[in-house]
This record gives sequence, structure tokens and C-alpha cells, in this order.
Amino acid sequence: MTGRLGRPRISVYIAHSVDGYIADRDGSLDWLFTRAALEGEDYGYEEFMASVDGLAMGRATWDFIADEPSLPFGDRRVYVFTHRAARPRDGVEFWSRTPQEAVAQWQAAGLNRVYVDGGRLISDFLAAGLVDDLVLTVVPVLLGSGSRLFHEIPVLTSLALESSQAYSNGVVQLRYRRTWH
Amino acid sequence: MTGRLGRPRISVYIAHSVDGYIADRDGSLDWLFTRAALEGEDYGYEEFMASVDGLAMGRATWDFIADEPSLPFGDRRVYVFTHRAARPRDGVEFWSRTPQEAVAQWQAAGLNRVYVDGGRLISDFLAAGLVDDLVLTVVPVLLGSGSRLFHEIPVLTSLALESSQAYSNGVVQLRYRRTWH
Repeated sequence: MTGRLGRPRISVYIAHSVDGYIADRDGSLDWLFTRAALEGEDYGYEEFMASVDGLAMGRATWDFIADEPSLPFGDRRVYVFTHRAARPRDGVEFWSRTPQEAVAQWQAAGLNRVYVDGGRLISDFLAAGLVDDLVLTVVPVLLGSGSRLFHEIPVLTSLALESSQAYSNGVVQLRYRRTWH
Repeated sequence: MTGRLGRPRISVYIAHSVDGYIADRDGSLDWLFTRAALEGEDYGYEEFMASVDGLAMGRATWDFIADEPSLPFGDRRVYVFTHRAARPRDGVEFWSRTPQEAVAQWQAAGLNRVYVDGGRLISDFLAAGLVDDLVLTVVPVLLGSGSRLFHEIPVLTSLALESSQAYSNGVVQLRYRRTWH
């Protein structure tokens, strides 16, 4: 079942600074773990992951975790979008496909919901009009520079706010779904 | 009285899209009025303005309003930061000063709180470490491209969340103050 979309739902779940960066100028995520850590709080990550049966990421995100002895994705399928050769790994497919081609493949494979991660790949899926919902976790800092979450694309995406939640450490989580006007 | 800072408080109050744009690719603010309009709701603007005795803006923001027969700023002083010649106007000073020089001037003039507006000028003040608080009104749309609120600067600014408020139309207002760690 792929639901009323007739294709897998494409979802974003990502943390960014107030000025829209997902990694600092050194490519590091340390700022995130320092500033967003909150005892006993996972910001809905486990619940979100439980709803997902596929993960897609760009090459930069993959390279960040490629050397981990075990990947924290359970038996979910993992798709790395890259044009460059990569060392094969069990359970991971390396794709050089457009978002449209990828979604068609996921639909054929019977996936319900795919988590698209990484700034560049998210923007590619947004540019293709294929992102259905976003969970954005806004960390109370202006990094000033680094890797941006949202790259420039020629497509406008209308959103509806599903919820906003503030945490005691100043993190705010905004949940949006795509609308069609 | 300039309060415990020993200088005027420097404040930002601005609306942006979820992907961080303040104007669309045509330089227009129409998207904002269409998507954020909410009957009887001014998102705290009047209250904010009542606390302000000076307004600073960049040249792009000024050019947007320069031809208005009357400016909606009451008797507040207006400072336009520009390196280019501009047609003089009563109550408006055209400055080619650094943020540090400007703040010293405002302090000498006895101002309490200055509203700094416009993406480029806000980033200049952030880069100088001179922004004390921000009210960010997040409009539920990804514009994809346009004028960014936050330009790349080499300075990190730690923030504390003062409040977050969601409105029925999906707008979320986040209020932050600067912290020093």
C-alpha cells in the first residue's frame, strides 16, 4: 500500500540552525549535539524512523557514516545518490538517478515512506516537487556559515503547519506538510 | 537611559519563508502579504514598534519605500545605510558607517532601541556582534529562491528562545535573545 499518493511518501527530518545551516564551516555536526542534546528527548526521531522503510541520502551524508561498523537503520533499505564510485556495502544501493526515477523505483519496490536526508538531496527532491512533509528541528544558534539546508531552486513549495513544539533548551520543532496552493 | 548594555539595544523583527528568504526572486514581498495575512493580527508589530526609537535599514529596503508620500515610522529617527548618493528626505539620515560607528552615534544621541531591517544590514550587524534580539516570523512556504535573510558571515551567535507562537494560518513567530556562550 502506498497510500493516497499512489507512490511512497517522501519525508524530511532534519535539524538546522536558525540561519539555516545543517553543518558548520568545518562540515561538523558537533554544534548540533552540543546545543540540542536534551536528556531523555529524541525529538520524535524513533517514532519517525519507525514509520520509514527506506532512507535516501546524498554522497556527503553517506561519506559521513560510511566507515561506521554498523549502520543505525535496522533493516531499512538505504539509497545513496552519487555519481561517483563507492565501496559496496550490504543493504546499501548507490544510485545515479533523478528523484522522479528514484520514486518510480521505490514505488515498484513497494516502499511506503522514504526519508530523504542531506541538504543537496533534499533540495533536489523539492525541485522535483516530490517532498510531502518536513520535520524541521530549529536549534537556537546562528552559525553564520556552513552547509545550508535549503539550496536555491526554481520551485515554490506551499506548506501547512502541522505542529510546532518548543523544548526547554530552546529547540523548536516545526512539522509541515506540503499543500497544493 | 540605554539600559544595562550601555548602548542602544539592537533588534531585528522580520518575516521569512521556511527556507530563509525575505523577498522572492523578483524582489517582491507579495508572497508575504498573501500568505501571512490574518485578520486582526499584526504579529506584535505595533507593540514592537512602540519600543523602538530608531530604525536602520539598508539601501535596498529604503529604495522599496523611498517614494511613499509618508513613511509609517512616526517621529522615530530613520537611518539608511548606503554608500551611494540618495535624494534627501526629512527625518532620514543617509549613513556610510560601520555598525560599530553607528551604535556609538546612536548611543551619543541617546537612543534606547534601534530596529535594524533588511537582510544585508542585519547580517552586517550580526557579523559585528551587535544584534541583541530577533523576532522571526516564519511563513509556511518554501520560496526556493529570492533574497536571503541570513548572509554568510564568519561569526557564530548563540541564542536563547524567549517564546514561540503558532498562528492559525501556520505562521510561527520565534523570539530569541542573544546569549554569550
